[in-house]
Amino acid sequence: MQKTKAGIINVTSYAGVELARLLHQHPEVELFSVTGRSTTGQKLGNVFPHLASLDLTIEAELAGVDLVFSALPHKESAPEVISLYERGAKVVDISADFRLKEASEYPSWYGFTHPTPQLLAEAVYGLPELHQPQITSARLVANPGCYPTGAILALAPAVKAGLIEPDIVVDSKSGISGAGRTLELKSHYSEANEDVTAYALDGHRHLPEIVQELKQLNAGQTPVITFVPHLIPMTRGILTTAYASISPGKLAGDDKGRQELNRLYQDFYRDKPFVRVTEMSPHTKHTWGNNFCLVHPTIDYRGEKLVVISCIDNLVKGAAGQAIQNMNLMLGLPETTGLETLAVYP
Amino acid sequence: MQKTKAGIINVTSYAGVELARLLHQHPEVELFSVTGRSTTGQKLGNVFPHLASLDLTIEAELAGVDLVFSALPHKESAPEVISLYERGAKVVDISADFRLKEASEYPSWYGFTHPTPQLLAEAVYGLPELHQPQITSARLVANPGCYPTGAILALAPAVKAGLIEPDIVVDSKSGISGAGRTLELKSHYSEANEDVTAYALDGHRHLPEIVQELKQLNAGQTPVITFVPHLIPMTRGILTTAYASISPGKLAGDDKGRQELNRLYQDFYRDKPFVRVTEMSPHTKHTWGNNFCLVHPTIDYRGEKLVVISCIDNLVKGAAGQAIQNMNLMLGLPETTGLETLAVYP
Amino acid sequence: MQKTKAGIINVTSYAGVELARLLHQHPEVELFSVTGRSTTGQKLGNVFPHLASLDLTIEAELAGVDLVFSALPHKESAPEVISLYERGAKVVDISADFRLKEASEYPSWYGFTHPTPQLLAEAVYGLPELHQPQITSARLVANPGCYPTGAILALAPAVKAGLIEPDIVVDSKSGISGAGRTLELKSHYSEANEDVTAYALDGHRHLPEIVQELKQLNAGQTPVITFVPHLIPMTRGILTTAYASISPGKLAGDDKGRQELNRLYQDFYRDKPFVRVTEMSPHTKHTWGNNFCLVHPTIDYRGEKLVVISCIDNLVKGAAGQAIQNMNLMLGLPETTGLETLAVYP
Amino acid sequence: MQKTKAGIINVTSYAGVELARLLHQHPEVELFSVTGRSTTGQKLGNVFPHLASLDLTIEAELAGVDLVFSALPHKESAPEVISLYERGAKVVDISADFRLKEASEYPSWYGFTHPTPQLLAEAVYGLPELHQPQITSARLVANPGCYPTGAILALAPAVKAGLIEPDIVVDSKSGISGAGRTLELKSHYSEANEDVTAYALDGHRHLPEIVQELKQLNAGQTPVITFVPHLIPMTRGILTTAYASISPGKLAGDDKGRQELNRLYQDFYRDKPFVRVTEMSPHTKHTWGNNFCLVHPTIDYRGEKLVVISCIDNLVKGAAGQAIQNMNLMLGLPETTGLETLAVYP
Repeated sequence: MQKTKAGIINVTSYAGVELARLLHQHPEVELFSVTGRSTTGQKLGNVFPHLASLDLTIEAELAGVDLVFSALPHKESAPEVISLYERGAKVVDISADFRLKEASEYPSWYGFTHPTPQLLAEAVYGLPELHQPQITSARLVANPGCYPTGAILALAPAVKAGLIEPDIVVDSKSGISGAGRTLELKSHYSEANEDVTAYALDGHRHLPEIVQELKQLNAGQTPVITFVPHLIPMTRGILTTAYASISPGKLAGDDKGRQELNRLYQDFYRDKPFVRVTEMSPHTKHTWGNNFCLVHPTIDYRGEKLVVISCIDNLVKGAAGQAIQNMNLMLGLPETTGLETLAVYP
Repeated sequence: MQKTKAGIINVTSYAGVELARLLHQHPEVELFSVTGRSTTGQKLGNVFPHLASLDLTIEAELAGVDLVFSALPHKESAPEVISLYERGAKVVDISADFRLKEASEYPSWYGFTHPTPQLLAEAVYGLPELHQPQITSARLVANPGCYPTGAILALAPAVKAGLIEPDIVVDSKSGISGAGRTLELKSHYSEANEDVTAYALDGHRHLPEIVQELKQLNAGQTPVITFVPHLIPMTRGILTTAYASISPGKLAGDDKGRQELNRLYQDFYRDKPFVRVTEMSPHTKHTWGNNFCLVHPTIDYRGEKLVVISCIDNLVKGAAGQAIQNMNLMLGLPETTGLETLAVYP
Repeated sequence: MQKTKAGIINVTSYAGVELARLLHQHPEVELFSVTGRSTTGQKLGNVFPHLASLDLTIEAELAGVDLVFSALPHKESAPEVISLYERGAKVVDISADFRLKEASEYPSWYGFTHPTPQLLAEAVYGLPELHQPQITSARLVANPGCYPTGAILALAPAVKAGLIEPDIVVDSKSGISGAGRTLELKSHYSEANEDVTAYALDGHRHLPEIVQELKQLNAGQTPVITFVPHLIPMTRGILTTAYASISPGKLAGDDKGRQELNRLYQDFYRDKPFVRVTEMSPHTKHTWGNNFCLVHPTIDYRGEKLVVISCIDNLVKGAAGQAIQNMNLMLGLPETTGLETLAVYP
Repeated sequence: MQKTKAGIINVTSYAGVELARLLHQHPEVELFSVTGRSTTGQKLGNVFPHLASLDLTIEAELAGVDLVFSALPHKESAPEVISLYERGAKVVDISADFRLKEASEYPSWYGFTHPTPQLLAEAVYGLPELHQPQITSARLVANPGCYPTGAILALAPAVKAGLIEPDIVVDSKSGISGAGRTLELKSHYSEANEDVTAYALDGHRHLPEIVQELKQLNAGQTPVITFVPHLIPMTRGILTTAYASISPGKLAGDDKGRQELNRLYQDFYRDKPFVRVTEMSPHTKHTWGNNFCLVHPTIDYRGEKLVVISCIDNLVKGAAGQAIQNMNLMLGLPETTGLETLAVYP
């Protein structure tokens, strides 16, 4: 049987090389063509020695592919994606350019006017745990941001069940690879090592995604989210701690409440192969290099507060792995194809 | 002029060796005697090569000292401190054994019945930014925990001014040295590196300190605190992010509100040499090895939420440095004596 | 087709859990049974959450397996391996207990008298790049140490070709996971982070393996090796830098010499799928989580010195991955089966 | 008494900010003026928050200072230093521009023709352990490179005593701050973390310094040095492991040899306050933030090889601390003034 041919635009980003790694182990899809920018014409394995087995050359343009991943930055991705879409290709866009349903959010959050607002309605937000049926039939999937993936999966069951008040705190801790491969002082080794800092205190671009998706889960309530991301000295991983007041009468006031809560989360994620509801406080290390999201909901009885912790690998479930999960659905393959490898520990 | 002679009980803990380092650079106090447990009889410089210049032997018991630091673990510290106190010594206790005013809290949080409840009233909680006058005349100072130092300093101005609702979230990120020098899987390098995790989800021992101190600042309000500590892969530093709803009408709803807030914090810490209210989001790296606490208050306008970030070195302002700050006050010295060195960056 | 059933003795070591991870992705072999020590009776996924997909219970004894990996420490492994061997099982021993051909080396290097010296002759040293034919027909394979794997692969082509003088310096830099999961001060996070140290200056146990294997490659020369291992603050990876004087007249004295050298190494490793001779100085990161050994030979013209650098992941090519490579050969499978995944970067 | 006024040219490099930190704790010298490049006109504390206590503005040009440190890059430093020197200032040049005595080495190693070869004779190589008398009377001191400091101090006693053959291997492991504050892929966090690599295999610029200084110690022998530097994932510290064959008959062939060797090193460094000859294998962590060089000489009896390990903090003894040590000597102060603080551990 012929393998499906996939291409990656801008393979030289961290999401791009991670896509290449994961596609290499995919049994039904072949990475057939990749593009870069400054590195056009070079062998992929010369720029990224760990990809030498792939034997690909970085091209100026994709050719002969059935499905495309765009790993371009926001604003640059949209024109490429539109053009591919119009030519009939299936596209998974890793950038933010088709994630928000409201075109009016792009100028304020991303600093550009969206070129094809009508396509925003057609694009599907690629969080399979929420939108699997739509993804299955989509031609354009907007792959979620890394923070939203962890935050939405932490909160979705509670929001949908109406367990919590709308006022939510989301405190996220991310490894440095989330800042990308572009050289910046904040990701300079000697600055980032032995340091932790909060950033984007005026509002991070991933916030509107989180609000958009949680709002859809519960028509009666618009969440008001305070989201503070932090950079911590590790390469991969995001741990999100979410806090919200439990609505009166929604959960038993003792350990029985925790059991009810755990059951509710277990039920919500019953057939979701990449979400595991844990009994213990989870570690990002247990997702290193694989596509799992670990979710641990609990209750702080002093404050009648829901506390939910989620862990992902920001480059896998937070980017390239989720993109392949979406691709699998778009191609009619089992969701887990090529994504079964376990986390690399320790 | 004769220097004051100080001693350290259990110098072999991380707080103990940090005290030794800081006392070495103190112009008015001499580290005169140290005790250990398994290492009695050895040269301090053989066990800790960076302290070789001190030329001290680890003794079974202190002798000839004017002031004692106890760096014993909780429960073990109390009997030693009581005995020293009864013999007339000045004591700074790094452990938790005299921090809580309510003796009834010890069995539930620390698992032992306090041997001298009457001494709890006499002991002064050693956070100089709140209790300087009492420390100055104290004979027994209970040095605060590392998390409480960062959390209380982040919240004290807002709580005292009645700015916020009582329902507070405190999310702290600590380096691994906070877990001590005792060997444990959670501080085993290969487990802790490239990992972040939340712990003590059922309630961390440092919580009652935080509540006790914030409650004293505002008689009209008992704070209800959800406190979640996290371990992140670095040796030193704690960054705390605190969240609370702003009480209606307390701050202007625009950028003017942030200015009022900043001014309120600046005023509160005007004469406090070790707290710096920052305009930018602070980094733990900017406190590495020194006694500063950096505090950055801001407002999330979407949620009408106060967000305050504080940074300390957990072994300095969070332990040994604060102990020396307390010692300075107890000895009638300027608060900053011997603590003027800048952070080691990068 | 029925899969071969494999078992792991002492799965709870780092080599053990890495074997479990790699066997999970093996298409022809099933991990069927595992044993532990203190954790007998527990679910594997409770002790190691990243292995939860495996759904195995830690047993007191293996049962029903065709091939066994022993991940016990040295001295403890031998009796188990002997017993399994006598019952006809195929065994890959990760410990050092069958690596040395001379029984007389065990008392001095490992502190015990070898119980079955006659088995040492039968055991095959499991470095497939040197001993593939023997491994293919072996029933007992002694999996090489992590340092020897990197050192021997760096030097074998030069030694075999008689390029260098016998006096060799091997300077290795290892991540902390090489020190194992047992709690020790040297692998305590706050001690190992931001630190580098040399150790085993009186002679490291891996030295006799290196000498034994290099000696076999060149009958005319017994190498005299100064081997100094170092611990550096990362979890995985060993980089070895080897130095030796080039024998007079063996290589051209200019850049042509480097080309000859590169060609010699390329030829030596032509059909070895897991050794890649690189043009550039290699990074351990490019082997993270996979079974490659990158080897870069070069010449320092000032000193007429051969300098060879090799990189491996100490837990994969340096332990579990190589064990599976050996298993593949013992089972008549292609050497690379189940080991094709790329390194996880960054 | 009036303090001496010091200035720093290009304070915004890592060596520059470290000078500022160390001068802040100096009792006899005041940091009076600093210059930068892109940051001229800004408050030093805005660019480097940990230096806020210094209350200095970054100027375009120094003014009113008695002694100048140049922290400019090589080639850019020379013109500034020449101009200052001609105007009569005392200068410590952190760059390489006055380290080499042979002007002819500059084009090949540094890519420029030296503008004032005559000044090279006048400049003193600022390694106080070798050149204290000349430094004391110098007006221009060339501060040694970080690698040469560790390598020369490791080898000087053995070379001077004629203990070893001229063929020497120097294998150094450096933290990432040695690569400076300029953004580069090799010091990008996600590339450098969890990685080790050798670099400059064609010859590192610090090699001629090492050869120049060792050659002066023993007229009968020109050392031939193979020097390979490595980058390891930590911020500060260099550990150097040096290897050389012991000349026949120079040291006893048993443990007595090690004692003779240790005594020889102890004697060489008897009155050198910043070099400590250790009995145990040293750790870079034991020099973190202070001016010590730890040196541990030993013998590998198998190969009759001298093995010497040295540890420094690359930004202190390897740069700014040594510069202040030189300044002290130039000003007639005790060598240790302002440099007595202990290493920050852990």
